[in-house]
This record gives sequence, structure tokens and C-alpha cells, in this order.
Amino acid sequence: MLSDIRNPADLKKLAPEQLPLLAEEIRSLMIRVVTRNGGHLASSLGAVELIIALHYIFDTPLDRLIFDVGHQAYAHKLLTGRANRFSTLRSEGGISGFLKREESPYDEFISGHSSNSISAALGLAVGRDLVGQKHHVVAVIGDGALTGGMAMEALNSAGALQSDLLVVYNDNRMSISPNVGALSQYLSLKMTSPEHLLLRERVKRMLEKIMPHKGTRFIRRFQRAEESVKSFLISPTSFLAAWGFKYLGPIDGHDLKKLLEAFQHVKNLRRPILLHVVTTKGKGFAPAESDPLSFHGVGRSKPTLEGADSLEPAAVGQVKKTYTDVFGAYMTQAAQKDDKIVAVTAAMSQGTGLEPFFSAFPLRAFDVGIAEQHAVTMAAGLAVSGLKPVVAIYSTFLQRAFDQLFHDVALQKLKVLFAVDRAGLVGEDGPTHQGSLDLSYLRLLPYFTVMAPKDEHELTSMLDFALNLSGPVAVRYPRGPITGRAPTISSPIELGRAEVLCEGSDLTIAAIGQTVWPAFEAAEVLATKGLRVTVLNMRFIKPLDTSAILAAAEKCGRILSVEENSLTGGLYGAISETIVKLPQPIQVKGVGLPEEPIAHATSDRQRALAGVDVEGIIKAALTFFPHLNLEAPLKAK
Amino acid sequence: MLSDIRNPADLKKLAPEQLPLLAEEIRSLMIRVVTRNGGHLASSLGAVELIIALHYIFDTPLDRLIFDVGHQAYAHKLLTGRANRFSTLRSEGGISGFLKREESPYDEFISGHSSNSISAALGLAVGRDLVGQKHHVVAVIGDGALTGGMAMEALNSAGALQSDLLVVYNDNRMSISPNVGALSQYLSLKMTSPEHLLLRERVKRMLEKIMPHKGTRFIRRFQRAEESVKSFLISPTSFLAAWGFKYLGPIDGHDLKKLLEAFQHVKNLRRPILLHVVTTKGKGFAPAESDPLSFHGVGRSKPTLEGADSLEPAAVGQVKKTYTDVFGAYMTQAAQKDDKIVAVTAAMSQGTGLEPFFSAFPLRAFDVGIAEQHAVTMAAGLAVSGLKPVVAIYSTFLQRAFDQLFHDVALQKLKVLFAVDRAGLVGEDGPTHQGSLDLSYLRLLPYFTVMAPKDEHELTSMLDFALNLSGPVAVRYPRGPITGRAPTISSPIELGRAEVLCEGSDLTIAAIGQTVWPAFEAAEVLATKGLRVTVLNMRFIKPLDTSAILAAAEKCGRILSVEENSLTGGLYGAISETIVKLPQPIQVKGVGLPEEPIAHATSDRQRALAGVDVEGIIKAALTFFPHLNLEAPLKAK
Repeated sequence: MLSDIRNPADLKKLAPEQLPLLAEEIRSLMIRVVTRNGGHLASSLGAVELIIALHYIFDTPLDRLIFDVGHQAYAHKLLTGRANRFSTLRSEGGISGFLKREESPYDEFISGHSSNSISAALGLAVGRDLVGQKHHVVAVIGDGALTGGMAMEALNSAGALQSDLLVVYNDNRMSISPNVGALSQYLSLKMTSPEHLLLRERVKRMLEKIMPHKGTRFIRRFQRAEESVKSFLISPTSFLAAWGFKYLGPIDGHDLKKLLEAFQHVKNLRRPILLHVVTTKGKGFAPAESDPLSFHGVGRSKPTLEGADSLEPAAVGQVKKTYTDVFGAYMTQAAQKDDKIVAVTAAMSQGTGLEPFFSAFPLRAFDVGIAEQHAVTMAAGLAVSGLKPVVAIYSTFLQRAFDQLFHDVALQKLKVLFAVDRAGLVGEDGPTHQGSLDLSYLRLLPYFTVMAPKDEHELTSMLDFALNLSGPVAVRYPRGPITGRAPTISSPIELGRAEVLCEGSDLTIAAIGQTVWPAFEAAEVLATKGLRVTVLNMRFIKPLDTSAILAAAEKCGRILSVEENSLTGGLYGAISETIVKLPQPIQVKGVGLPEEPIAHATSDRQRALAGVDVEGIIKAALTFFPHLNLEAPLKAK
Repeated sequence: MLSDIRNPADLKKLAPEQLPLLAEEIRSLMIRVVTRNGGHLASSLGAVELIIALHYIFDTPLDRLIFDVGHQAYAHKLLTGRANRFSTLRSEGGISGFLKREESPYDEFISGHSSNSISAALGLAVGRDLVGQKHHVVAVIGDGALTGGMAMEALNSAGALQSDLLVVYNDNRMSISPNVGALSQYLSLKMTSPEHLLLRERVKRMLEKIMPHKGTRFIRRFQRAEESVKSFLISPTSFLAAWGFKYLGPIDGHDLKKLLEAFQHVKNLRRPILLHVVTTKGKGFAPAESDPLSFHGVGRSKPTLEGADSLEPAAVGQVKKTYTDVFGAYMTQAAQKDDKIVAVTAAMSQGTGLEPFFSAFPLRAFDVGIAEQHAVTMAAGLAVSGLKPVVAIYSTFLQRAFDQLFHDVALQKLKVLFAVDRAGLVGEDGPTHQGSLDLSYLRLLPYFTVMAPKDEHELTSMLDFALNLSGPVAVRYPRGPITGRAPTISSPIELGRAEVLCEGSDLTIAAIGQTVWPAFEAAEVLATKGLRVTVLNMRFIKPLDTSAILAAAEKCGRILSVEENSLTGGLYGAISETIVKLPQPIQVKGVGLPEEPIAHATSDRQRALAGVDVEGIIKAALTFFPHLNLEAPLKAK
């Protein structure tokens, strides 16, 4: 059936009774592709009927459909002309795992970072009205994304503006770990419980019994109150009424008949509506549905909020130990020795490797929901109270808290340790998830120390070092497997001191983080061509080891900076700012990420494309020696 | 009385009956000092009784008191040992206009950027419990600050954790312009109206009448519902119940007796409490209280959310036209010609000069509350719908939306114009409000164009230029008066092209924004010493005019970059990144802001301290010529 659906118009040719079968077909294709290519299976499985119904009732792309995060949107891709390319999901040159305006006219707005959908939808709705168009605007947002302050700002704003806007609240309940948020608990657990449903029916009947006399003056006064009482009891969301939304639901998000009815109904209500749809994550995938716990236990589809229901292709084969694992293990160990250590994360307890810590120290572990801003400032508060907070957030999501890093942590010089995971290229998740800017933006913060380890051993040493610093500090490290190298005899970590891995007078390669060993390997290859290379493991971008840089500059006259970070404002920038102070001519070149985002592909492939691998470093190094006959070795000096 | 109060312990020696007199004394001192020094008068006048009562009942600094934004906290300063220095408020070397940990042990947490107080308080409360201490933690947050998503994230998180924590909701009602937020409207207007107060009493009585039979099985089932109904009707804040908070109030925030009772009561409730206190902004200051509209009309104490109740010292004397005014006038004019132009701001409609636009085009003007994140992404949505959104936000507050700038605007290459006001030094508001990072962080965003005008005429040209670009663009300009210069015959704005103001071969000064004319004046002085200086008005930091820089570098061999932005990662960084590519030696030095924040003082004084004025530029330029006998002119070459 799916192969006949080239667009939503084709979908509309089906009879409503055929849709459940289509849902089945979609699920089976999704499971097949995602277990092979990796991706966000559980969320997308949960939203199949929801998305079919949306495209069936609404008139996309004229009506605008916006998906929050986009984890849930594979069915949307399948129904909008991408079924035949779906097998390329998340592969290089293939379709993206998230929504992308360039990919399809049906992808109305970017998805990737959470909680942006209502803001975007409100902009579209207001814009529509100003331009004098008539289409519908629909945002689909999950329960996790609704814990993001930005989504709440948008609800507040949308309620005030009273534009015609439908927010579909896709509540899969399982996605929230118990301590994540009062709001979600309230919405999901309390208000959709069978007990509550019974209660609300009874109260409704009682209210109708005691207040039937509409029209009397006394009762008229009470009408608004009655409505409030009803809406509070009948819906979970008096708070949404407070925000100016009309709340409808909850309805079963796997019952296509009910979904079609509901969308048909709300289509004609010209005001802000929140439709509460309850879905089951992983719906239709036996391992997830029948035994969610052990399914989650294999580390694939853990129902945390942010991307953590994703299947990694690697997970299908052998599972390699990652930097994330090393950080997680370190935290548990360190916390055993030091009871002042506490952990804060923003819906990434699994993704950042903190699950063992959360199990071992539940009272010292805080998952605050998709709320990076709050996470950072709460940690600042914890630091003021004398604890040693460690905030673990992915590089790309920490961007959300840039101001809190500056205002609440840096300006107060508070001792907070930021474990910045997923720094650099992240592979199949693509541009929205790349941690390409953290060296650049963290370096701007006064009083911060910013480090990146060359390997897993150095990560541990740096965390130790960081916990003994008195001010704010960030350690950034990559997504993916550890190097597996044996520990090298290395100089201990000293504040603002680089490590010299090898010395030579032709060229200095100054590398940081995960690019250090590739730089070292490149130097080994260059040595075979007769080039004598100094390799500096910078360790710190802030404070930068300017004396190591200047010494190297004077010795070699040529510096190649290497980083898995944007070439704008990061290590290359920091080194340039240092070098230009010198009176003598020093040539500096940089290996790093271009500003233009690198499309999804495997991390290795992305590294090759950006030239931040051994080969790329060699190539960049050789541009310093254009006269060099690369086939012949350099003359010994 | 105030002179005898060196700390809150002295305050406690007073009898409760004496407190109203103390409040009067505090108000009179505040009015005297603030009308002279400038500052946030209206908010602080509104919170006098509230703060007296807090210090009277709680045991500060053992009990922790955190003020959101800090506009309201002058009484706190007066009661905590700073009365005798209060006349130095906001003056150089004097006490800060906001809360500062370094200033007093009673200043528990930084205030300046809005909506951080509940996060900080939660961190402190959780920390207290972990460390095993027993004190109270209180956050005081205004209605404006509660529209910030971060505050909502924190409520959500605090409700889930159920720590003992008091949030005092200081609701001055007037502070919200009508379209700002559904939530605030709901809380303030609906639920504290006399009509509603009456209603809630009646409903309460009715409920008691129909549900007195506690203990029967039927009623037990209804007890939770009853409580919900009551809390919904009796309080404005069933949504707070949803967040796990117990709501109390509203109480009259100028009735000391009620305040003391309320604080005494909540002190012993060990759970998250929100106490709703209704206050009057400007309370006790006749011009504000008796005729709020015309008082606001003089442009001093306009009740918008962010800092806009501040009195500027300048306002007492002649009112100078500002960059903000020029932007505001431009917007109104441009919008008359182009009906696609819409404006978005985050509770800064007055502060950004958009009030005339808001009056002239109410349907095209959006003040979304203190919600920078939402503002930026909503603008992205407006751009997708074909409009030309202009987002006006202060430099320091735009930090809040760094991720949205990247993810929702830059990655999608959307045509959104950011008018970045208050870029650079801001004078008396001090470090929390300085716009010292925008050139650095905006430069990191792919596909962005980032500009800064040398004067008010160029601001207009740049806005024109920006509105004709197809992608995202930011124009940053300073707080304060325009140059008043006559328009110069200037080269038209071209993408990524610098303007050459004068040419000489000894030194190139590359300046941007408000430092361009000072750089030019410096060059004139240097000319009198025989130095021939090229002055480049860079106009763009992104894309940078690298060919102008390289040409100048080759000609002079010396470049002085000048910016009113951090020396890290801004213009100096961008120029350094360019220069190090050259094989020949070019010396680059930078004039700009140090990372260490510059304390509050007048803007001119801050500029002198940072060396970003004519004198500082001359001094920096001369460091290139250490051998130069400054008394004698250079030999003509």
C-alpha cells in the first residue's frame, strides 16, 4: 500500500478502514530500516497512527505540520514522498533522521533541538493571519519536549495571542523518568489514570445535577466557575486554560477512528487548542512492547527524553566502550570517595552515562527534564551550598544554557564542572546535533577553564583535575568509542599547560581533544617524509598555553592547529590571537570544522569530509611545504 | 530609624508597629538617591514591605534570600548593612544596582538576568538537604520574570523534587503590557479581581455545604477532587498545583501585618510553597502612584518588564537622542513602506525604542514577555511564512537565545533581522547587563551577517541594507546618545566591505561600531605626532573584509583592532584568524573589553577604564612605536 502513496493526496484516496493496515506496513518498514541504519525507533513507532491521521485530515503542505524534536516523524517521511528512499535513512546522501526544510516541502521547520515547535508554529500562525492566508498550523510535541522552558514560553505567548493553532500533545508517558518533572507527572500519570477518568465522570454528573438552573442570576455568576471546575476535573490541564488554550482529550493515539474524528473536529475551531493524545512508545515492536524493561536494558531504546530511544547501528554488532561510559564510571567511583559530588543532567541521564550514578546515588542525582537552562543555574545553586555539582549535557544542547553559563556560573566564579559530551562530529544525527561550537563559546566565558582530553585515560585525569579546581570548568569529549590505547606515560595535568608528545623543528601541530592522537599519527607519517614535527596536546583551550605556542612558533615558524570544532573562534582562533602578538612571521593554518554544517554520515566519514582525521591533517601539514616533492623525503637539516 | 539598622538583627529589635514607619523612611531615602543616581525605582518601591517582612521573619543570611532580576531589592540593601553607602548606588566604586555575592553575605545569588531565582533557590534547597542543614530558602520573583521559560522549568523541577522552598511571587500587575502573556493575565487580572475574590468565597462555602460528610466512602473518593476544586477556585494557580507547589495568597504586599503572618505561617511548611503577594509598583512615590500613565509617559518608569522602570541620571537633565530612538523611528518609517515588516521583542518594547511601532502597528508588533528563546524562534516561524521579522533584544539578553539563533535561524538560513541594542558597555547597570560578547558569539553562527554602525546615520543605512539581505543578519549598536555628527559622504554599504576613512602607511586601525569615530579622532591626534594612519570602518565582522585587512596589513605591517566587545573571539579574533594566514610578519594588537567584567560606573568612565576611547586608542597605537619620542613628531618618510 505504501508504495502507492507518493504524497498525502494518495493517502486520502484510501478508505479510513484501510488505514490500520497502512500503519502496520509503515511499522514493519520502519523496524526493518531502523534496526539496520540506526535511528529513533520507539518514538516513531508510537506516532504512526497520529501522523497518518494528521495527513489524512489536514491538507499538507498547504496546512503546516511541525514536529518537535523529530524523533517521532519517520511516518511523516514515509507519507510525504520519501518511502522509496527510506532505506537511506541517516546514511550519507540519504534522508535525514530529523526534519529539514531542504529535504521536503512537507518539512516545514527544522527539528532536532527540543521544544521549539510551538514557537515556530505560533510564528507561522501569526504570519498566516497577517498575510491573509487560511491554512491550518499544527505542532506535534511530546511530553518530554514540553518540559523545556521554551515550549512553556510559547504556550504562554500563544495563549495571549489567541491565534488559530493546534498543538498535538503526544504523550507517551513512559518517556519521563520519575523525577523528571511535576508537570508531566501531573499530566500523564494523574489525569489519564482509570481512577481519574472515573472520578471526572462522576464529578461531571454531580456538577450537572447541582448546577442545572442556567439562567438564574445566581448561577450565571457561577457559570465561569463551573466551566473552570469542569475543565479542571475533566481535563488534566487547567494550567493550559490558564495559558489561554482550549484543552481536548486525552484520546487514544493508536485509535485511528478517534484520531480522525478529533482532528476533523478541531480543524474548525479557530483558536489555540491543545489536543492530548496518549500513545505507546515502541508500539508494534514486540521486544519493546511486551518487555519494555529488558528491551531498554540492552541500551537501545531506553525511554529517556533526548534521542535516547535511538538504535545505534554499532549496537547491532559488538558494543564498544565509549567516552560516555568512561565518564559514567568515573562519576560513580568519584562519588563514592567524595560525598559532595552531585550530578545534574537535562533528560540525558542515559545518554551521558550517568545511569549507574543515578542508581547508586539517587539522592545526589538530578534529571531536571529537557531544561538545560534550569539545570545549569540549579547547579550554580548547588555550588553555592557547598556541593560539587557535575553537569552532564551534550555540547549541542549546552548551547541552550549559554547565558546561564555566563551569568549564573561564570560571573559568580562558581565551582561547577561541565561534562560536555558529544563534542565534535556526531555521525548520523547530523547538523542539528553536532557539537561544533563548544570550544568557541565556552572560551568566551570569564573565569572558565576549558579542557579536552586526547583519550579516555586523559579524560579521567582531567575530571580529577577539574574537581580540584576552585572555579567553573568544562571538559569536552566526543561521542563514540574510546581509543583503546594503552595508557601512555604522560605529564600530569597542570592548569593551562600543554603536553609535548614529540618534538621537531619543521612544523608544530597543536591539537586538542580527540584530534591529538590522529595528529600524532600524522606526525609519524610526516616523519617518514623527513618532516620533523612537534606535536602539542594542548589539553586546555582556556587558559591557553601561550608559552608553549610561542616557543613552538619560534622554533618552527609554522603552526597547524587541529580541532574537532568550528574553525571560527575555537583553537585556531585562540592560537591566532596569540601568534599575531609576535613580531616575527609565523604561519598558522587550521584543521577543523567548517561553519557550514556537515551532513549526516558516519562519524568517520564526516571526519574525512572535514579533514579532521589523520589523512586530513597530513594533507593540511603538507600545504606548508608546497615546494616539497612528496615522493622524496626532505633533506635532513 | 534606618541609621540604627546595621543588619537584620537590628531590624528584629523593632516592634512590628514600628515597621510601617521604617518603610516610609526607606522609601524616602530610595527616592532621594535614585532620582539622583538613576536606578530601578518603581520595582524597589513596590517591594519595601515585602522585604522588611522577609528579613523580620527569616533569619538571614543563615536563611537564604534570592531576588530575581534584583530591580526590586534596594530595601534589601538598606537593611543589610548598606544604608550608609546607599548614596553611592550605581556610582563607580559604590554599591551595585543589582545583587552581587562579592558585595554582601546577604546577597546569596547574582541577579540581573531575569528568571534565574527559582533554579538557584532549588539548588540551594537541595544542597541544604544533602549537606544536612536546616535553614530556609526563599526566592522572590516578579510577575514579569515568571514569563521566562527558565522559571517555568524550575517550578516544574522544584515541584517534582518537593524540597522545602518558598517562592514569593511579587505580582505588581502593572508590569505586564496587555499582550505579554496569557499566564500573567490569568494570574493577575482574573484571579485577584474583587469579583473573583467574591466568587471564590461563595464557591468555597458552597463546596463546604455540599461536601460536609467527610468519612463516607463516596465522599472520600471526592476528597482529592474537592481539594483540586478548592485550590483552583480559591487560588489562581491550579497550574502551580500541577507543578507540585502549594499556592497561598494572594495577600496585600503593603500590609506588613499580613505579610508577617504569612511568612510566619509558611516558614513551618516544609514543602514547595508559592506565596502570591500583590504589590503596587512605585508605591509611595506620588508621581508614580497618583498618575501612573503620565509618569510613565516621561519615559522614566514605563512599566515594561526588563529594567524599564529605571531612571537614568541623564533623564533628569536634557534628554539626548539615542541609537535606540533612531532604530525605533526607522522601524516605524520602514513599516509604513513595507507591510511585511513585523517586530518581535521580549519585554523590551520600550527599552528597544519600539513603542511607536507598537502604537502604529499593533497587529504587527509582538512583545512575548521575558522569553528571548521563544521570541527568536517565533521570528523564525514568521520568516518562514514570508514576513520580515525584526527582533529587537539587548545584546546581553540575546545570549539567552544563542541556541535558537543557531538551530532555528542560522541552520535554516532564515531571513530574520536582529537589532542588538545595548551592545558594549552599558554604564551603571554593570557587568550583568554589559553587551560584551555579541560580536564573538554571533560570529560563530553559520550563514549570519553581523554588522555594527559607526554612527546613527550608518545605523539607518545598515538597517536598510539588512532588510534587503536574504539570510539572517544582526546589527549591533550601543546604549546611549547618538554621535550628533553631520552625515558624512560615505561609501554605500556593501556586503562584507569595510569603509576606508583615511589612509596612511604607518599603522592601520580597524575599528567597528561605536569605536570607529573615536578611532578616527585618535588617528587625527596621531597625525599630529607624524604618524600616518589608515582607519578602516569594518562595518561587518561577518563576513569580514579580509581583503581590506590584508591590503592594510601589507601596507602598514601593523594593525590595531578596536571594538567595544570582548577581546576574546570578536573583531580582534576575526582579524587574527585572517592575518596568521599571511607569510609576512604583521603585528596585530587589540583594543577591546577584557574578559573580566567592568564594574558599574558611567559608560564614559567604563570606556576610559577599558581603553576603548580616543585616549585608549592613541595609547594602544603608540605601543607599536616604542622607540618613538612622543614629544617630537615622527620624521616624514
